[in-house]
Amino acid sequence: MTRRVPKRSFPVGEVRRYLEPGPIVLVSSRLGDKTNIMTMGWHTVMEFTPALVGCVISGANHSFRMIRESGECVINLPTTQLTDEVVGIGNTSGGEIDKFAHFGLTAAPAKAVAAPLIAECHANFECRLHDDALVDKYNFFIFEVVHAHVARAPQHPQTLHYTGDGVFMVSGKIISRRAKFRPGML
Amino acid sequence: MTRRVPKRSFPVGEVRRYLEPGPIVLVSSRLGDKTNIMTMGWHTVMEFTPALVGCVISGANHSFRMIRESGECVINLPTTQLTDEVVGIGNTSGGEIDKFAHFGLTAAPAKAVAAPLIAECHANFECRLHDDALVDKYNFFIFEVVHAHVARAPQHPQTLHYTGDGVFMVSGKIISRRAKFRPGML
Repeated sequence: MTRRVPKRSFPVGEVRRYLEPGPIVLVSSRLGDKTNIMTMGWHTVMEFTPALVGCVISGANHSFRMIRESGECVINLPTTQLTDEVVGIGNTSGGEIDKFAHFGLTAAPAKAVAAPLIAECHANFECRLHDDALVDKYNFFIFEVVHAHVARAPQHPQTLHYTGDGVFMVSGKIISRRAKFRPGML
Repeated sequence: MTRRVPKRSFPVGEVRRYLEPGPIVLVSSRLGDKTNIMTMGWHTVMEFTPALVGCVISGANHSFRMIRESGECVINLPTTQLTDEVVGIGNTSGGEIDKFAHFGLTAAPAKAVAAPLIAECHANFECRLHDDALVDKYNFFIFEVVHAHVARAPQHPQTLHYTGDGVFMVSGKIISRRAKFRPGML
Protein backbone atom coordinates (compact mmCIF):
# COMPACT_ATOMS: atom_id res chain seq x y z
CA MET A 1 0.00 0.00 0.00
CA THR A 2 1.28 3.47 -0.83
CA ARG A 3 1.73 6.02 1.91
CA ARG A 4 -0.07 9.27 2.55
CA VAL A 5 1.94 12.30 1.47
CA PRO A 6 2.21 15.30 3.85
CA LYS A 7 1.64 18.64 2.13
CA ARG A 8 1.74 22.38 2.51
CA SER A 9 -0.63 24.93 1.00
CA PHE A 10 0.58 26.28 -2.33
CA PRO A 11 -0.29 29.45 -4.32
CA VAL A 12 -3.18 28.62 -6.67
CA GLY A 13 -1.79 31.00 -9.31
CA GLU A 14 1.22 28.70 -9.74
CA VAL A 15 -0.51 25.36 -10.33
CA ARG A 16 0.79 25.45 -13.92
CA ARG A 17 4.06 24.27 -12.36
CA TYR A 18 2.42 20.84 -12.00
CA LEU A 19 -0.33 20.75 -14.62
CA GLU A 20 1.24 22.39 -17.67
CA PRO A 21 3.66 19.49 -18.36
CA GLY A 22 0.59 17.33 -19.08
CA PRO A 23 0.46 14.70 -16.33
CA ILE A 24 -2.36 12.22 -16.07
CA VAL A 25 -4.43 13.22 -13.02
CA LEU A 26 -7.00 11.64 -10.74
CA VAL A 27 -10.22 13.62 -10.30
CA SER A 28 -12.10 13.00 -7.07
CA SER A 29 -15.68 14.08 -6.47
CA ARG A 30 -18.56 13.83 -4.01
CA LEU A 31 -22.32 13.94 -4.46
CA GLY A 32 -24.29 13.42 -1.27
CA ASP A 33 -22.59 10.59 0.61
CA LYS A 34 -21.00 9.03 -2.50
CA THR A 35 -17.42 9.69 -3.55
CA ASN A 36 -15.69 8.70 -6.76
CA ILE A 37 -12.39 8.95 -8.64
CA MET A 38 -11.68 9.10 -12.36
CA THR A 39 -8.47 9.21 -14.41
CA MET A 40 -8.12 12.22 -16.71
CA GLY A 41 -5.59 13.22 -19.35
CA TRP A 42 -7.34 15.95 -21.33
CA HIS A 43 -6.80 19.17 -19.40
CA THR A 44 -5.03 22.50 -19.77
CA VAL A 45 -4.16 25.49 -17.64
CA MET A 46 -6.21 28.48 -18.87
CA GLU A 47 -5.37 31.41 -16.59
CA PHE A 48 -3.14 32.34 -13.62
CA THR A 49 -5.62 34.57 -11.73
CA PRO A 50 -8.26 33.37 -11.29
CA ALA A 51 -6.47 30.01 -11.46
CA LEU A 52 -8.43 28.33 -14.24
CA VAL A 53 -8.06 24.79 -15.56
CA GLY A 54 -10.08 23.43 -18.50
CA CYS A 55 -10.89 19.70 -18.53
CA VAL A 56 -12.71 17.26 -20.79
CA ILE A 57 -14.83 14.86 -18.73
CA SER A 58 -16.76 12.46 -20.91
CA GLY A 59 -20.43 11.96 -20.17
CA ALA A 60 -19.63 8.23 -20.14
CA ASN A 61 -17.87 8.70 -16.80
CA HIS A 62 -19.82 8.07 -13.61
CA SER A 63 -18.06 11.21 -12.31
CA PHE A 64 -19.60 13.46 -14.97
CA ARG A 65 -22.95 13.91 -13.23
CA MET A 66 -21.39 14.02 -9.76
CA ILE A 67 -19.10 16.87 -10.77
CA ARG A 68 -21.69 18.76 -12.77
CA GLU A 69 -24.31 18.57 -10.03
CA SER A 70 -21.99 19.27 -7.11
CA GLY A 71 -20.06 21.92 -9.08
CA GLU A 72 -16.85 20.73 -7.43
CA CYS A 73 -13.98 18.30 -7.72
CA VAL A 74 -10.37 17.83 -6.66
CA ILE A 75 -7.63 17.37 -9.25
CA ASN A 76 -5.04 15.08 -7.66
CA LEU A 77 -1.53 14.58 -9.04
CA PRO A 78 -0.30 10.97 -8.83
CA THR A 79 3.30 9.90 -9.35
CA THR A 80 4.65 6.62 -10.73
CA GLN A 81 4.17 5.11 -7.26
CA LEU A 82 0.46 5.08 -8.13
CA THR A 83 0.72 3.73 -11.69
CA ASP A 84 -1.34 0.63 -10.97
CA GLU A 85 -4.01 2.71 -9.22
CA VAL A 86 -4.14 5.18 -12.13
CA VAL A 87 -4.71 2.35 -14.60
CA GLY A 88 -7.17 0.54 -12.34
CA ILE A 89 -9.22 3.66 -11.68
CA GLY A 90 -9.36 4.41 -15.41
CA ASN A 91 -10.62 0.92 -16.20
CA THR A 92 -13.38 0.55 -13.62
CA SER A 93 -16.63 2.41 -12.97
CA GLY A 94 -17.70 4.23 -9.84
CA GLY A 95 -21.18 2.91 -10.58
CA GLU A 96 -19.92 -0.57 -9.66
CA ILE A 97 -17.22 -0.13 -7.02
CA ASP A 98 -16.13 2.28 -4.28
CA LYS A 99 -12.83 3.38 -5.79
CA PHE A 100 -11.29 4.71 -2.58
CA ALA A 101 -11.91 1.39 -0.83
CA HIS A 102 -11.10 -0.83 -3.81
CA PHE A 103 -7.74 0.83 -4.51
CA GLY A 104 -6.78 1.41 -0.87
CA LEU A 105 -6.70 5.18 -1.19
CA THR A 106 -7.45 7.66 1.60
CA ALA A 107 -10.19 10.27 1.22
CA ALA A 108 -8.93 13.27 3.17
CA PRO A 109 -11.04 16.36 3.88
CA ALA A 110 -10.53 19.37 1.63
CA LYS A 111 -10.46 22.97 2.85
CA ALA A 112 -12.88 24.67 0.48
CA VAL A 113 -14.89 21.91 -1.23
CA ALA A 114 -16.83 18.83 -0.13
CA ALA A 115 -15.03 16.56 -2.63
CA PRO A 116 -12.24 14.57 -0.95
CA LEU A 117 -8.49 14.86 -1.47
CA ILE A 118 -6.58 11.67 -2.33
CA ALA A 119 -4.01 11.66 0.45
CA GLU A 120 -1.54 9.43 -1.43
CA CYS A 121 -1.10 11.91 -4.33
CA HIS A 122 1.78 14.38 -4.59
CA ALA A 123 -0.57 17.37 -4.91
CA ASN A 124 -4.27 18.16 -4.60
CA PHE A 125 -6.01 21.06 -6.31
CA GLU A 126 -9.45 21.89 -4.92
CA CYS A 127 -11.70 23.09 -7.74
CA ARG A 128 -15.04 24.83 -8.16
CA LEU A 129 -16.85 24.80 -11.48
CA HIS A 130 -16.24 28.25 -12.97
CA ASP A 131 -17.91 28.01 -16.39
CA ASP A 132 -19.99 25.25 -17.95
CA ALA A 133 -20.66 27.03 -21.25
CA LEU A 134 -18.99 24.25 -23.27
CA VAL A 135 -20.09 21.25 -21.21
CA ASP A 136 -23.09 20.33 -23.35
CA LYS A 137 -21.22 20.66 -26.63
CA TYR A 138 -17.74 19.35 -25.74
CA ASN A 139 -17.90 17.92 -22.19
CA PHE A 140 -15.49 20.77 -21.43
CA PHE A 141 -15.51 22.04 -17.83
CA ILE A 142 -13.64 25.17 -16.73
CA PHE A 143 -12.69 24.93 -13.06
CA GLU A 144 -11.18 27.49 -10.72
CA VAL A 145 -8.54 26.10 -8.38
CA VAL A 146 -9.55 27.58 -5.02
CA HIS A 147 -7.00 25.86 -2.80
CA ALA A 148 -3.84 23.87 -3.58
CA HIS A 149 -1.85 21.41 -1.46
CA VAL A 150 1.61 20.28 -2.59
CA ALA A 151 4.19 17.95 -1.03
CA ARG A 152 7.43 19.67 -0.02
CA ALA A 153 9.54 17.06 -1.82
CA PRO A 154 10.50 15.96 -4.37
CA GLN A 155 10.56 19.31 -6.16
CA HIS A 156 9.99 17.55 -9.50
CA PRO A 157 7.69 14.55 -8.90
CA GLN A 158 7.87 11.65 -11.33
CA THR A 159 4.59 12.05 -13.18
CA LEU A 160 2.82 9.87 -15.75
CA HIS A 161 1.94 11.23 -19.20
CA TYR A 162 -0.46 9.17 -21.27
CA THR A 163 0.11 8.62 -24.99
CA GLY A 164 -2.82 6.27 -25.68
CA ASP A 165 -2.77 2.53 -26.31
CA GLY A 166 -1.89 1.71 -22.70
CA VAL A 167 1.48 3.48 -22.92
CA PHE A 168 2.72 6.17 -20.54
CA MET A 169 5.69 8.48 -20.83
CA VAL A 170 7.32 9.09 -17.46
CA SER A 171 8.73 12.52 -16.69
CA GLY A 172 12.46 12.72 -17.22
CA LYS A 173 15.32 15.10 -16.54
CA ILE A 174 14.89 18.77 -15.75
CA ILE A 175 16.64 21.51 -17.73
CA SER A 176 16.62 25.23 -16.99
CA ARG A 177 16.84 27.99 -19.58
CA ARG A 178 15.87 30.67 -17.08
CA ALA A 179 18.70 32.98 -18.11
CA LYS A 180 17.34 33.12 -21.66
CA PHE A 181 13.83 34.26 -20.70
CA ARG A 182 12.61 37.83 -20.57
CA PRO A 183 11.29 38.37 -17.01
CA GLY A 184 7.66 38.77 -18.08
CA MET A 185 7.76 35.58 -20.13
CA LEU A 186 8.72 33.15 -17.37
CA MET B 1 21.52 24.39 -37.74
CA THR B 2 18.98 21.63 -37.16
CA ARG B 3 17.90 19.42 -40.02
CA ARG B 4 14.56 19.06 -41.72
CA VAL B 5 12.66 15.96 -40.60
CA PRO B 6 11.03 13.74 -43.27
CA LYS B 7 7.47 12.74 -42.40
CA ARG B 8 4.53 10.60 -43.37
CA SER B 9 0.84 11.45 -43.10
CA PHE B 10 -0.72 10.30 -39.83
CA PRO B 11 -4.35 9.69 -38.77
CA VAL B 12 -5.74 12.91 -37.30
CA GLY B 13 -7.85 10.95 -34.80
CA GLU B 14 -4.65 9.77 -33.10
CA VAL B 15 -2.87 13.06 -32.51
CA ARG B 16 -3.43 12.56 -28.76
CA ARG B 17 -0.45 10.20 -29.04
CA TYR B 18 1.74 13.33 -29.29
CA LEU B 19 -0.27 16.10 -27.66
CA GLU B 20 -1.81 14.44 -24.59
CA PRO B 21 1.52 14.11 -22.72
CA GLY B 22 1.65 17.91 -22.61
CA PRO B 23 4.60 18.96 -24.79
CA ILE B 24 5.41 22.56 -25.45
CA VAL B 25 4.53 23.23 -29.10
CA LEU B 26 5.32 25.82 -31.76
CA VAL B 27 2.30 27.35 -33.48
CA SER B 28 2.91 28.68 -36.98
CA SER B 29 0.52 30.98 -38.80
CA ARG B 30 0.11 33.08 -41.94
CA LEU B 31 -1.88 36.22 -42.66
CA GLY B 32 -1.42 37.60 -46.16
CA ASP B 33 2.30 37.37 -46.91
CA LYS B 34 3.41 37.42 -43.26
CA THR B 35 4.21 34.26 -41.30
CA ASN B 36 4.88 33.90 -37.61
CA ILE B 37 5.66 31.35 -34.90
CA MET B 38 4.75 31.33 -31.21
CA THR B 39 5.56 28.96 -28.34
CA MET B 40 2.50 27.45 -26.60
CA GLY B 41 2.08 25.28 -23.53
CA TRP B 42 -1.61 25.63 -22.67
CA HIS B 43 -3.45 23.12 -24.86
CA THR B 44 -5.50 19.94 -24.54
CA VAL B 45 -6.92 17.27 -26.79
CA MET B 46 -10.74 17.58 -26.77
CA GLU B 47 -12.08 14.94 -29.16
CA PHE B 48 -10.91 12.09 -31.41
CA THR B 49 -13.34 12.62 -34.32
CA PRO B 50 -13.47 15.38 -35.32
CA ALA B 51 -9.88 15.73 -34.05
CA LEU B 52 -10.24 18.72 -31.75
CA VAL B 53 -7.54 20.52 -29.80
CA GLY B 54 -8.25 23.42 -27.43
CA CYS B 55 -5.54 26.09 -27.00
CA VAL B 56 -5.06 29.27 -25.02
CA ILE B 57 -3.42 31.95 -27.19
CA SER B 58 -3.01 35.20 -25.32
CA GLY B 59 -4.10 38.38 -27.04
CA ALA B 60 -0.64 39.72 -26.19
CA ASN B 61 0.82 37.43 -28.86
CA HIS B 62 1.39 38.83 -32.34
CA SER B 63 0.01 35.47 -33.57
CA PHE B 64 -3.39 36.01 -31.92
CA ARG B 65 -4.81 38.24 -34.65
CA MET B 66 -3.10 36.30 -37.45
CA ILE B 67 -4.71 33.05 -36.28
CA ARG B 68 -8.09 34.54 -35.52
CA GLU B 69 -8.34 36.35 -38.85
CA SER B 70 -6.95 33.55 -41.00
CA GLY B 71 -8.83 30.88 -39.02
CA GLU B 72 -5.84 28.57 -39.39
CA CYS B 73 -2.57 27.53 -37.84
CA VAL B 74 -0.16 24.62 -37.65
CA ILE B 75 0.72 23.04 -34.31
CA ASN B 76 4.32 21.83 -34.63
CA LEU B 77 5.96 19.42 -32.18
CA PRO B 78 9.60 20.29 -31.39
CA THR B 79 12.03 17.97 -29.64
CA THR B 80 14.95 18.83 -27.37
CA GLN B 81 17.04 19.45 -30.51
CA LEU B 82 15.06 22.68 -30.83
CA THR B 83 15.23 23.79 -27.18
CA ASP B 84 17.04 27.03 -27.95
CA GLU B 85 14.59 27.83 -30.75
CA VAL B 86 11.61 27.11 -28.48
CA VAL B 87 12.94 29.52 -25.86
CA GLY B 88 13.97 32.13 -28.41
CA ILE B 89 10.61 32.05 -30.19
CA GLY B 90 8.80 32.41 -26.86
CA ASN B 91 10.87 35.45 -25.91
CA THR B 92 10.65 37.50 -29.10
CA SER B 93 7.78 39.09 -31.01
CA GLY B 94 6.72 38.48 -34.57
CA GLY B 95 5.96 42.19 -34.70
CA GLU B 96 9.71 42.84 -34.59
CA ILE B 97 11.42 39.91 -36.33
CA ASP B 98 10.75 37.27 -38.98
CA LYS B 99 10.93 34.20 -36.75
CA PHE B 100 11.52 31.66 -39.52
CA ALA B 101 14.51 33.66 -40.80
CA HIS B 102 15.82 34.67 -37.39
CA PHE B 103 15.82 31.13 -35.98
CA GLY B 104 16.90 29.38 -39.20
CA LEU B 105 13.71 27.37 -39.53
CA THR B 106 12.15 26.19 -42.78
CA ALA B 107 8.57 27.15 -43.70
CA ALA B 108 7.27 24.16 -45.67
CA PRO B 109 3.94 24.16 -47.49
CA ALA B 110 1.00 22.51 -45.74
CA LYS B 111 -1.58 20.34 -47.49
CA ALA B 112 -4.84 21.85 -46.28
CA VAL B 113 -4.02 25.26 -44.80
CA ALA B 114 -2.05 28.33 -45.91
CA ALA B 115 -0.08 28.47 -42.63
CA PRO B 116 3.38 26.92 -43.01
CA LEU B 117 4.76 23.75 -41.44
CA ILE B 118 8.03 24.02 -39.51
CA ALA B 119 10.10 21.40 -41.35
CA GLU B 120 12.54 20.87 -38.46
CA CYS B 121 9.82 19.70 -36.03
CA HIS B 122 9.04 16.03 -35.33
CA ALA B 123 5.36 16.42 -36.24
CA ASN B 124 3.05 19.03 -37.80
CA PHE B 125 -0.68 19.22 -37.21
CA GLU B 126 -2.57 21.40 -39.70
CA CYS B 127 -5.47 23.11 -37.93
CA ARG B 128 -8.60 25.01 -38.86
CA LEU B 129 -10.43 27.12 -36.29
CA HIS B 130 -13.45 25.03 -35.30
CA ASP B 131 -15.08 27.11 -32.56
CA ASP B 132 -14.23 30.58 -31.27
CA ALA B 133 -17.02 30.76 -28.67
CA LEU B 134 -14.54 31.19 -25.80
CA VAL B 135 -11.95 33.34 -27.55
CA ASP B 136 -13.23 36.69 -26.30
CA LYS B 137 -13.63 35.52 -22.71
CA TYR B 138 -10.64 33.18 -22.26
CA ASN B 139 -8.45 33.46 -25.40
CA PHE B 140 -9.46 29.81 -25.86
CA PHE B 141 -9.43 28.54 -29.45
CA ILE B 142 -10.84 25.14 -30.45
CA PHE B 143 -9.07 23.86 -33.57
CA GLU B 144 -9.78 20.85 -35.74
CA VAL B 145 -6.67 18.99 -36.90
CA VAL B 146 -7.37 18.47 -40.61
CA HIS B 147 -4.06 16.89 -41.62
CA ALA B 148 -1.17 15.46 -39.60
CA HIS B 149 2.45 14.77 -40.56
CA VAL B 150 4.66 12.70 -38.26
CA ALA B 151 8.28 11.53 -38.54
CA ARG B 152 8.68 7.73 -38.79
CA ALA B 153 11.29 7.69 -36.04
CA PRO B 154 11.89 7.91 -33.17
CA GLN B 155 8.61 6.40 -32.03
CA HIS B 156 8.79 8.38 -28.79
CA PRO B 157 10.37 11.77 -29.51
CA GLN B 158 12.14 13.58 -26.69
CA THR B 159 9.71 16.40 -26.03
CA LEU B 160 9.89 19.47 -23.78
CA HIS B 161 7.32 20.07 -21.04
CA TYR B 162 7.26 23.51 -19.48
CA THR B 163 6.86 23.96 -15.72
CA GLY B 164 7.21 27.76 -15.56
CA ASP B 165 10.15 29.82 -14.31
CA GLY B 166 12.34 28.91 -17.31
CA VAL B 167 12.40 25.21 -16.38
CA PHE B 168 11.46 22.35 -18.68
CA MET B 169 10.85 18.70 -17.91
CA VAL B 170 12.15 16.45 -20.68
CA SER B 171 10.18 13.31 -21.56
CA GLY B 172 11.62 10.21 -19.97
CA LYS B 173 11.19 6.47 -20.15
CA ILE B 174 8.18 4.74 -21.65
CA ILE B 175 6.14 2.18 -19.73
CA SER B 176 3.26 0.08 -21.04
CA ARG B 177 0.29 -1.13 -19.03
CA ARG B 178 -1.64 -2.17 -22.15
CA ALA B 179 -2.52 -5.59 -20.70
CA LYS B 180 -4.36 -3.93 -17.81
CA PHE B 181 -6.66 -1.79 -19.98
CA ARG B 182 -10.16 -2.69 -21.08
CA PRO B 183 -10.14 -2.49 -24.90
CA GLY B 184 -12.52 0.49 -25.06
CA MET B 185 -10.44 2.45 -22.56
CA LEU B 186 -7.14 2.48 -24.47
